[in-house]
Amino acid sequence: MTRQSPTAEGVESAAKRIEDWVTRTPLLPFEWRGRRLWAKAECLQQGGAFKLRGATNRLLQLDEEEKKRGVVAFSSGNHARGVAIAARRLGISATIVMPSDAPAVKREATAAEGAEIILYDRAREDRVAIAARISEETGAIVVPSFDDIDIIEGQGTAGVEIREQLAAEPPLVVVPCGGGGLSSGIALALPNSAIVPVEPAGWDDMARSLERGEIVPVGEGAPATKLDALQTPIVSPHTFGVLHARGARGLSVSDEEAFAAMRFAFDHLRLVVEPGGAAALAAVLAGTVADVPEGSVVILSGGNVDPGLYASVLNGAA
Amino acid sequence: MTRQSPTAEGVESAAKRIEDWVTRTPLLPFEWRGRRLWAKAECLQQGGAFKLRGATNRLLQLDEEEKKRGVVAFSSGNHARGVAIAARRLGISATIVMPSDAPAVKREATAAEGAEIILYDRAREDRVAIAARISEETGAIVVPSFDDIDIIEGQGTAGVEIREQLAAEPPLVVVPCGGGGLSSGIALALPNSAIVPVEPAGWDDMARSLERGEIVPVGEGAPATKLDALQTPIVSPHTFGVLHARGARGLSVSDEEAFAAMRFAFDHLRLVVEPGGAAALAAVLAGTVADVPEGSVVILSGGNVDPGLYASVLNGAA
Repeated sequence: MTRQSPTAEGVESAAKRIEDWVTRTPLLPFEWRGRRLWAKAECLQQGGAFKLRGATNRLLQLDEEEKKRGVVAFSSGNHARGVAIAARRLGISATIVMPSDAPAVKREATAAEGAEIILYDRAREDRVAIAARISEETGAIVVPSFDDIDIIEGQGTAGVEIREQLAAEPPLVVVPCGGGGLSSGIALALPNSAIVPVEPAGWDDMARSLERGEIVPVGEGAPATKLDALQTPIVSPHTFGVLHARGARGLSVSDEEAFAAMRFAFDHLRLVVEPGGAAALAAVLAGTVADVPEGSVVILSGGNVDPGLYASVLNGAA
Repeated sequence: MTRQSPTAEGVESAAKRIEDWVTRTPLLPFEWRGRRLWAKAECLQQGGAFKLRGATNRLLQLDEEEKKRGVVAFSSGNHARGVAIAARRLGISATIVMPSDAPAVKREATAAEGAEIILYDRAREDRVAIAARISEETGAIVVPSFDDIDIIEGQGTAGVEIREQLAAEPPLVVVPCGGGGLSSGIALALPNSAIVPVEPAGWDDMARSLERGEIVPVGEGAPATKLDALQTPIVSPHTFGVLHARGARGLSVSDEEAFAAMRFAFDHLRLVVEPGGAAALAAVLAGTVADVPEGSVVILSGGNVDPGLYASVLNGAA
């Protein structure tokens, strides 16, 4: 039976399926405006981002024949690395289609896992088409970065951990959002928490889609952003569907707000967070999230950042 | 009955006493030369270093009359901050004697906890004498940074967590060492693990004391070091006694080796580690630890580093 959409039960099954393959990332307390909040440190996940969760959940469900065909994924970096790690561990060959402007740290780390890297021009080429062509030519299974039930359910396991770590559902979870895999997965895991997806300014298609009640792509001429991990041109019916059904509303942050959040994480949490991974924290610190109750959770979704950019951010020069 | 020395039982009692006051820091896997090792991320402890453990264990055992008198501590920063946090939470006034060259980030963070800061000249003044004078004048209780049974037993709770997190004792634990409170406390918690304390080059008095079989202070004219957290002129009979009885041998690392370890922690662990906090990792990466079996643990003891220095380290310019 083909499943139509990701479910809470699917997230719970994923949590059991992948628990021996991923790090249970810590939930770290921090103070903000006199309130105690929690940071879910997915930057400490193996591969430096939450992406290993979904990739592992997807690849563990391939049958033997599919494993032999290999996998192909398109990603600006973190999903690439997650798929590459999961594939290496399971003895599956992986081809990754990455934009040529992806941070070097992400390209190199993905190659180091043994994946084959194919670069494309973000402005002129269509990564979905490239991946589809590779799949046709080689028979490789396409592993989407968010538009996939198993991927979404895998990412949602971060929410299962939060519930177990707090022995309760938090009032609010603020989540960095690209295609919405993490936000929607966590929403399924935490049915009673308010979920706020946060996107880069100008790339806030999830926010605009939620507001309109239908999927709206990022417009032509969207601005450059340093939050490369969240630079997704259109969300998926699955991820949109979950968040829309929950009545979620999205927010956006600027590069500067993300940099300020990276410095906060350095000063107060001793965590290396990449610009996109700091989006949710940025929205809280900038006051963009209207109400942040005691005990709210902020997801720090990734920490793969080029050292030169990070040093510039610390020096206030980025 | 006055206790003569720190014990394994004392460490276990401390773990129960402080568990609601400190973060159970994660044990994060990483690969090195094809082996899986573990990083105990004490840089993620509240206050940015393991020191909250010992300070909390000590202050929780003050009686009401002692609490009213307040506490005084001398420290280059991390112990200061740990004592300041524990004192604030327990409603105890704290005075901290810090060297005037302590990193600004540590001074400011300690003051932010509400402690009174008294600066002294590391080269010309004796911080022990200053603290003793304050204690005489005000009646405040001196809280030593390592030469104290309760402090050592408190720091050792990191070892209790390691044992619980691995469900076993690791073969080897490599530990940054200043006065030896953390090393000796962990040694008590893990009686079957080999313990290797690591000090800054030229400040390796624990290593030389262990080799000689008696306490030897740091010599005159010890070199400048960026590993400020480990810059301790003489170890304590308690800490030396525990490590000597275990047959431990110490090692030392250079500033450059510590900086390389900070970059490794940035790239592979997404953790902000200060120079002293990176000493144990530095000794492993530099090959100074002769044999590092699969499953060994490296303690990252602190992450309080000035952003300017950290940026220089990332840029390879420190």
